[in-house]
Amino acid sequence: MTPGPDGPLEGIRILDLTSMISGPVATMLLADQGADVIKVEPPGGDLVRALGPNRAGFTATFVSSNRSKRSVVLDLKTSDGLAALKRLIPTADVFVQNFRPGAIERMGLGEDVVRALRSDIIYVSISGFGETGPYAHKRVYDPVIQALSGLASIQADRDTGRPRMVRTIIPDKTTALTAAQAITAALFSRERTGRGQHVKLAMLDAMVAYLWPEGMTGLTFVGREVHASRAQLAQDLIFETADGYITVGAVSDAEWRGLCAVLERSEWLDDERFKTAAGRVINAAERLAMTGMVLKQRDGADWLERLDREGVPCAPVLSREQVIEHEQIRVNATIEEHDHAIAGRIRQARPAARFSATPARIRRPAPALGEHSREVLGEIGFTAAEVDALVSR
Amino acid sequence: MTPGPDGPLEGIRILDLTSMISGPVATMLLADQGADVIKVEPPGGDLVRALGPNRAGFTATFVSSNRSKRSVVLDLKTSDGLAALKRLIPTADVFVQNFRPGAIERMGLGEDVVRALRSDIIYVSISGFGETGPYAHKRVYDPVIQALSGLASIQADRDTGRPRMVRTIIPDKTTALTAAQAITAALFSRERTGRGQHVKLAMLDAMVAYLWPEGMTGLTFVGREVHASRAQLAQDLIFETADGYITVGAVSDAEWRGLCAVLERSEWLDDERFKTAAGRVINAAERLAMTGMVLKQRDGADWLERLDREGVPCAPVLSREQVIEHEQIRVNATIEEHDHAIAGRIRQARPAARFSATPARIRRPAPALGEHSREVLGEIGFTAAEVDALVSR
Repeated sequence: MTPGPDGPLEGIRILDLTSMISGPVATMLLADQGADVIKVEPPGGDLVRALGPNRAGFTATFVSSNRSKRSVVLDLKTSDGLAALKRLIPTADVFVQNFRPGAIERMGLGEDVVRALRSDIIYVSISGFGETGPYAHKRVYDPVIQALSGLASIQADRDTGRPRMVRTIIPDKTTALTAAQAITAALFSRERTGRGQHVKLAMLDAMVAYLWPEGMTGLTFVGREVHASRAQLAQDLIFETADGYITVGAVSDAEWRGLCAVLERSEWLDDERFKTAAGRVINAAERLAMTGMVLKQRDGADWLERLDREGVPCAPVLSREQVIEHEQIRVNATIEEHDHAIAGRIRQARPAARFSATPARIRRPAPALGEHSREVLGEIGFTAAEVDALVSR
Repeated sequence: MTPGPDGPLEGIRILDLTSMISGPVATMLLADQGADVIKVEPPGGDLVRALGPNRAGFTATFVSSNRSKRSVVLDLKTSDGLAALKRLIPTADVFVQNFRPGAIERMGLGEDVVRALRSDIIYVSISGFGETGPYAHKRVYDPVIQALSGLASIQADRDTGRPRMVRTIIPDKTTALTAAQAITAALFSRERTGRGQHVKLAMLDAMVAYLWPEGMTGLTFVGREVHASRAQLAQDLIFETADGYITVGAVSDAEWRGLCAVLERSEWLDDERFKTAAGRVINAAERLAMTGMVLKQRDGADWLERLDREGVPCAPVLSREQVIEHEQIRVNATIEEHDHAIAGRIRQARPAARFSATPARIRRPAPALGEHSREVLGEIGFTAAEVDALVSR
């Protein structure tokens, strides 16, 4: 919102034809890092402009996925709209789209067309399932990838076996981070080699890669597969106290000794089941049940103070309302408030990584639909009248 | 495993002092993209070498978080070990560590020391909670960040309100992706400006930023806060069929019409509650219950074929065993098999993003502890005898 030092991606221009979440969140991260992201929207705008809670016509998800960008409206179904985009392409370093496979070519903006206009461009295609195969033609929503990637099965109810979704859109946002890193790597490579290239990313692949290191341990060794849910170590370490929920985890011997001291259960140190870290994993169910019984007897803050003193990892389970008020979040300045000219005062999470020399920062609030059509097209020589003619159509 | 074209980060050397997940998964992604990642391990090795299922001494999580790297053992508590690391630093472009705040300075490897040896290095510090504040001193495990970031509260049981963990380590892996992108952006910036810098990342900040666009919609507009759980749209779209679970989502009018046709419930199209997308959201509970009743009557494959024909987004809910056999995963070649000299044949998810000119690929299997001590230290002039003397201590 205020002028400041350049971000690490200063000087890079991104033509962003993506909509919904996976593409826009990726380019927002790059925009916060200084890239000039031009969001090209159809006359009706990105669908996210209409989804979920809103104020003055701006939805919360839109403002949190499209800040630091400029918005240009172009109807790419008209020859004038397409021609205007083609005049922008030579000014761009990156071209990103997340239409279903085949659509961008039918629109007349396939890689060959774009590369003819800018030979060293990074051309990026984000898809749901990949470019070929039985699912390539399908529409994708986040739950579909949760189901296909194994995430819903990882989250299954332990008693009934019924699969369960994670209630935030993990595949969309994981794809966004994976795409942002890949685009940045391609930009680095172009800087050294002078060559652009095509970067393709499927949400399904991004999720399987994301889950693999810990979620797929049972299937890693060929010929020695273990039922995946048995190989999974993660426990639901949530405990009820007299006045709310906390999490406590004691993995090492020192942490276990600390926990037994805090709980005043020194006799557990002599229990054969719990003498080693391996034993404590095998007998986790009993151990967690016994721990839970004791933790019910005092207030959460009381336990947390004692646990912290003994070096046992612990935290309160915060509601989202509590997260934004938490002292560590305040010290980190994780959440910023900005004035949006139309939507009013808004909260945003700042870019997570802090760069000492080239800070990432929120550059400007999310744009109104076509807010920068005149400005951006003016920069490449369109007159105000020409822009108005384009936009009014 | 085989020679091939260079990756986008070819020519970059990373000195990686991280352990556990968030650091190692970040540098693995960069190693697959061609960076020469030297994993510096203490004589006991990264703790992940001992956690979870293993074969021939290699744990599944270790091989899936440390492939494409070389391993050097150095005891940084000895002056000889520290001196050897300092001879490596001038050869490195990136130095990454995820010790608790203050520890790296106590080890004698703070930013000033490292930068004196290589002025343009990217120095990266990954922490759990940040460098100052009430949590900075605490040990961090993934569940602690799930509790503090609001993720456990997002996943709370809708009936009882009891918070619930997501059973895969979302904060660790989200931090890894965020760190990998930030390191890549800093490398890009150095390429243009010649300057290195310090990149700092807290897991807590990475998670809040990740959750924000969709998980924090109720708290985005200052002065118009909505109870966070009410503002959350995501439904648990899992349905039981006669022979298993599927997911089905009908958002647009066309998809709703398609769903009603497949379910042979054309009368639902006249139901006032479901006539608009907004109405279908408001009346989601009834709509999903009614849909669920019908879906129970046939097999999953039968429904999926019909739903696909009508353009309704859908998928089977796959177990992890089914994921690795699924036709779309096969077509995408998402999962690769490699021969590990010691651990045998292993499955890995390939790097998700595909680069047309500079392919990312699995370069080599995860290293044994200190497998490359001689090779790496030899490259900077240590004799075999000197390396043996270092390692034997």
